[in-house]
Amino acid sequence: MRTEMVDEMNSAGSAVSAPSLAPEGAARAAAVLEARSVAIVGASADPGKIAGRPLAYMLSRGFVGKLFPVNPTREQVQGLKSYASLAAIGEPVDLAIVGTPAGSVEDVIREGAAAGVKAFVVFSSGFSETGEEGAALQRRLGELARAEGVTILGPNCLGVANSATGLIASFTTALEETPIRQGGFAFVSQSGALGAYWMDICLRSGLGFSKWITTGNECDMDAASAIAYLADDPQTRVIGLYVEDIRDAEAFRRALLRAAAAGKPVIAIKAGRSRAGAAAAASHTGALAGDDTLYDACLRQQGALRVDSLGQMMDVARLFLFDSVPQGPRLAVMSVSGGAGVLIADEAERWELELPALAPQTADALKPVLPSFVKAANPLDLTGNVVQDTASISRALEAVARDPGNDAIVLFVGLMHSIATAFTDAIAQARQRTHRPIVVIWIGAKEESVAVLEQARIPVFRDIPPAVAALGGAVRLNGLRLAALTAPPLPKRGRAPAAATKTAFLAEWDSKKLLRELGIAGIPDGVLVEGELSGGLPASLSYPVVAKLQADDVLHKSDIGGVVLGIADDAQLHAALKHLRGIVRDRGIVAKGVLLESMQRFDHELLLGLRRDGRFGPTLTLGRGGVEVELDPDVVSRLLPLDAPRIREMIEGLRFARLMQGFRGRDAVDLSGLAQQIASLCDAFLARPDLAEIEINPLAVGKGRAWVLDAVVSRFL
Amino acid sequence: MRTEMVDEMNSAGSAVSAPSLAPEGAARAAAVLEARSVAIVGASADPGKIAGRPLAYMLSRGFVGKLFPVNPTREQVQGLKSYASLAAIGEPVDLAIVGTPAGSVEDVIREGAAAGVKAFVVFSSGFSETGEEGAALQRRLGELARAEGVTILGPNCLGVANSATGLIASFTTALEETPIRQGGFAFVSQSGALGAYWMDICLRSGLGFSKWITTGNECDMDAASAIAYLADDPQTRVIGLYVEDIRDAEAFRRALLRAAAAGKPVIAIKAGRSRAGAAAAASHTGALAGDDTLYDACLRQQGALRVDSLGQMMDVARLFLFDSVPQGPRLAVMSVSGGAGVLIADEAERWELELPALAPQTADALKPVLPSFVKAANPLDLTGNVVQDTASISRALEAVARDPGNDAIVLFVGLMHSIATAFTDAIAQARQRTHRPIVVIWIGAKEESVAVLEQARIPVFRDIPPAVAALGGAVRLNGLRLAALTAPPLPKRGRAPAAATKTAFLAEWDSKKLLRELGIAGIPDGVLVEGELSGGLPASLSYPVVAKLQADDVLHKSDIGGVVLGIADDAQLHAALKHLRGIVRDRGIVAKGVLLESMQRFDHELLLGLRRDGRFGPTLTLGRGGVEVELDPDVVSRLLPLDAPRIREMIEGLRFARLMQGFRGRDAVDLSGLAQQIASLCDAFLARPDLAEIEINPLAVGKGRAWVLDAVVSRFL
Repeated sequence: MRTEMVDEMNSAGSAVSAPSLAPEGAARAAAVLEARSVAIVGASADPGKIAGRPLAYMLSRGFVGKLFPVNPTREQVQGLKSYASLAAIGEPVDLAIVGTPAGSVEDVIREGAAAGVKAFVVFSSGFSETGEEGAALQRRLGELARAEGVTILGPNCLGVANSATGLIASFTTALEETPIRQGGFAFVSQSGALGAYWMDICLRSGLGFSKWITTGNECDMDAASAIAYLADDPQTRVIGLYVEDIRDAEAFRRALLRAAAAGKPVIAIKAGRSRAGAAAAASHTGALAGDDTLYDACLRQQGALRVDSLGQMMDVARLFLFDSVPQGPRLAVMSVSGGAGVLIADEAERWELELPALAPQTADALKPVLPSFVKAANPLDLTGNVVQDTASISRALEAVARDPGNDAIVLFVGLMHSIATAFTDAIAQARQRTHRPIVVIWIGAKEESVAVLEQARIPVFRDIPPAVAALGGAVRLNGLRLAALTAPPLPKRGRAPAAATKTAFLAEWDSKKLLRELGIAGIPDGVLVEGELSGGLPASLSYPVVAKLQADDVLHKSDIGGVVLGIADDAQLHAALKHLRGIVRDRGIVAKGVLLESMQRFDHELLLGLRRDGRFGPTLTLGRGGVEVELDPDVVSRLLPLDAPRIREMIEGLRFARLMQGFRGRDAVDLSGLAQQIASLCDAFLARPDLAEIEINPLAVGKGRAWVLDAVVSRFL
Repeated sequence: MRTEMVDEMNSAGSAVSAPSLAPEGAARAAAVLEARSVAIVGASADPGKIAGRPLAYMLSRGFVGKLFPVNPTREQVQGLKSYASLAAIGEPVDLAIVGTPAGSVEDVIREGAAAGVKAFVVFSSGFSETGEEGAALQRRLGELARAEGVTILGPNCLGVANSATGLIASFTTALEETPIRQGGFAFVSQSGALGAYWMDICLRSGLGFSKWITTGNECDMDAASAIAYLADDPQTRVIGLYVEDIRDAEAFRRALLRAAAAGKPVIAIKAGRSRAGAAAAASHTGALAGDDTLYDACLRQQGALRVDSLGQMMDVARLFLFDSVPQGPRLAVMSVSGGAGVLIADEAERWELELPALAPQTADALKPVLPSFVKAANPLDLTGNVVQDTASISRALEAVARDPGNDAIVLFVGLMHSIATAFTDAIAQARQRTHRPIVVIWIGAKEESVAVLEQARIPVFRDIPPAVAALGGAVRLNGLRLAALTAPPLPKRGRAPAAATKTAFLAEWDSKKLLRELGIAGIPDGVLVEGELSGGLPASLSYPVVAKLQADDVLHKSDIGGVVLGIADDAQLHAALKHLRGIVRDRGIVAKGVLLESMQRFDHELLLGLRRDGRFGPTLTLGRGGVEVELDPDVVSRLLPLDAPRIREMIEGLRFARLMQGFRGRDAVDLSGLAQQIASLCDAFLARPDLAEIEINPLAVGKGRAWVLDAVVSRFL
């Protein structure tokens, strides 16, 4: 029995710390989604009212389990015997639906838990969304869930639906008119509204759904739990996701990886992309890696594709649900209009899809099908005559499907209403004879033609950009998913620093000392001159040198003139030291001394930031260094852990990378060595949870060498 | 009478050279589109056949003029008296439709012209699309049109339609099932297929159309003629355009400007965006400014918006047709879902649209409408309760419409099927009480709700990205249109150089001499050392200097070591000259000498290219200079003429511009002065049609000064 297993896992406590992909939350979600007996607290006799809809929906859609209306003022509700209270039901029920006023929810749950109710869906609003008082009430609900060993979904949520059992613990109006239809698509939404829209689109388009979960304020069960559950759900093949705020990033990452491991693509919407970079942060590196950037990294690194709208989500999902995702980026485009073929090629380039040339044998096979003046090219101009002739279109499709040089066929047509049936039959038959996905773009397609093709698992789009975006997104998603599965395993759950934890930074000298202790290579030899310099340059250094003021309360020493570069002899050295002493005196700085370092030759400047983010934990930001980066940032952030191959990919993803790969006679940087050096730094940072941040700016890169020219380390206090 | 005017203008010849906005072509298009008597050559009795459809369409849609089937084998065709030939009609007709085999078309037109037919629509294929023989046949048709003073549309075209008169000189299947509907949208397409799809979408969406023109192979009447005609057409408010290849760029520019001057937005699709930069060109600058880039510049500079699909075109057009284009970029977003509001803000940023804060008085007016915990912000969270209450939604809409801080209201809702009627009525009424455009994004909207709102001139979109893209595109289009109308006037029609014209380049010394003669400022003082240098540095120069090999057959002198920089004294100078003489000897170069120039201090490197393009004539390309630009191009191209304000805008559009505007203590460049200097160069280039190209790379920019450090001029031979 599933529910027994659920209880067992719950009784093991909710803070499982093993670094497995099986988050504790899956069982919590199962307790809600797989309920076979449901009580509706305050059930209304009016099937149109919020308190009446769940019961009405489940009665009309044939819920396979038992239903118990709880309403002390009635004998019967919607034809069922009504109970005075949860306790009065007299048998333990799996799930209670609660929509009573906020102030009463705690009591209802306590009473239910005592009566053996294992899970609760709480519609009631008036919690954290209304202010501090509601937030306190909500915290108590979460504590109650853990104390009683029950699952609470919500509060302020729109509930769940399970198309396999007919469970509809929801009052969404999206189910008012449309019958439930089973499908392989599941949705997890932190917004009830977006959840409802998704449901409406899925049902009206005929896609159907497997499970539908809106998590609301997440006092207990969260989106991560829902994803982890869906990863194991046999009805679910594709997971859609709408998130606004991830509370437990680690559980979220594990849940996404679990879905990836189960071979289930995750397509996610996260609002707030445009605010990337706007979040304030303590250092330049942090400022460049805004919060949204980390959400982006989190989704991508765990194999999820980020899209910007429900429409885009549906388009990508359809390709997966119809087994029509190309194995690679190579498209063969066949078009009734030459212009449309070029427009498809234009869009393909945006999505890094390719249109390789047709193989010679394909061209030969096409010759008898095409008019003499048409060249066998990609895109292939079918001309109106070929498309109208079902024998020709079948032969052309089969010839192109046999070409080993493409991963999918995109067929563009328009109108053809008078011959739609013959045409759709021809395409559908061709699809049966090949494993190659066929995607149809049909401007002016009629509903019935679309239905015939989609029945044959051929996705139909009505315009070019969404079709190519879906193909590009699906290919990208498969790539991300594979990459996620070969990424270094997530470390054991670490305690995330509280947002309010204070930090203090070390001056460069002390920062570099600490980095040396951590075993970091590439730190230039340096000498700290604490008072007057007796004699000339210390023996370990050689001219030219740089002199840098060291003080714990000066973060940007060059802004106050605290750095003197290119010191070429003893006279210049003494002048520089005098200048720096003057700054200390004039500004009343408590200085540790002056750091002298031999200057290094290098070709490129990188900036590198390691940071413990309050939500996502340790992160790495890499980018092009130098002052210009602030004008036109060329920077990428990822969550740790990261191995050298992934760091190399980060570097190669920078526009700047092409410069480092050698250009016009400049030496190519040893990117593998550089990535390895940075990976060691990441590992060292992971192993030191007392460090808040390491910023190296610049990390100066020359042929075969990377120098830590300046560094600041911050520690938690 | 319109047709008389047409004849008059035609008789004046087709090569009007006055730089007016009234291209000769408008009259040619009028001769076709405003025909009141139409003969159909080879008219078929079968209304389903290509040769039967035009007559059938016009009979069933009530063409207001006379129809003359021409078919010698029949007495009657589709109920009308049939004529044996065009001559047999016995009266001059405005237009003849010709679909006979390619070889017979010339004779049919000659016979028709003799019988007084003024214009011909030629469906027949077998012309330039099939090869050289067909192209020759097609050229003869064009010559015939000019010789006889008639208009020929096509060959290989899908014809035209005029919804005001019921003229349907087309066999498009897009008209098979859908009745004609008048509207303000016109379309000009070089592709018959795209034309048909456009027609189908317009008719089925209820938008309707004014004129529909497919131009096919354009032996005579071209897209420019069609646009010029539509600019004056009182039924046309918005012009859609699909172009593949512009034959007469100057006429095309004038036609677009004519539309802009008439206040008609032009929305254009041009396939081939992804090939930008792939076209081979003689110099680096040319290589960066590929052909598609110039199409892009041409459309933009003449005030047209370029989009990537018919769907996007429809979306932007609907805003114009419903008088719902914001006067500026400021949106007030009202949303039933907080998450959707953020998604709208995300998309808005992509399109450079703003979401300004609400005015205090607006916040006050909203207070009684909104729940206490909702803040009066932008995006405004309406919550489900407010949207369901028609009085509240009206009050909220009106409060926001009175806010002086926005240019349009975007209202996001979903589902609401049960209250759709009350809701749509409330919105439609609010729209009547304000001039502020209201755009509705309604996920899950039903057809009937959309119809009610669109009847009230409220555009409805079913997802966020297309809605915001349409708003952004429409605002951008208005900006482009205004800019086009204040641009410097196009010069008199110049003879474009034939594509095959050969060019020869001048060495730097001669190039700079020529630029000096043209009055160009900023050329460093230089001395050409032709043999041995007697004595030290010439008196007009000062160290450090640069020495550059000068030879007519060396375009990239630094690639062969022909440039020595930073020469600091006489000894280095003599060594440099010796080195350069060695190169000349070793490579057997015919050298003119060595150019010595004092080195200049500068902060930034630009590249500048002036080029006479075979299609678009004189163009300017500006970009960031230096070797890195090839890795990550930051470059913009425009067609001449250009004034200083427009050149300044080009510079400000470069990412690099922010660096020139001053950053971290660097001096800001005098961009106005720089733009003025470049504008003079453009004018000089325009005035010298013998010059093929001027490339200045780098144009070295310092505080208040721009230096022509290297220059190559090419002339036509």
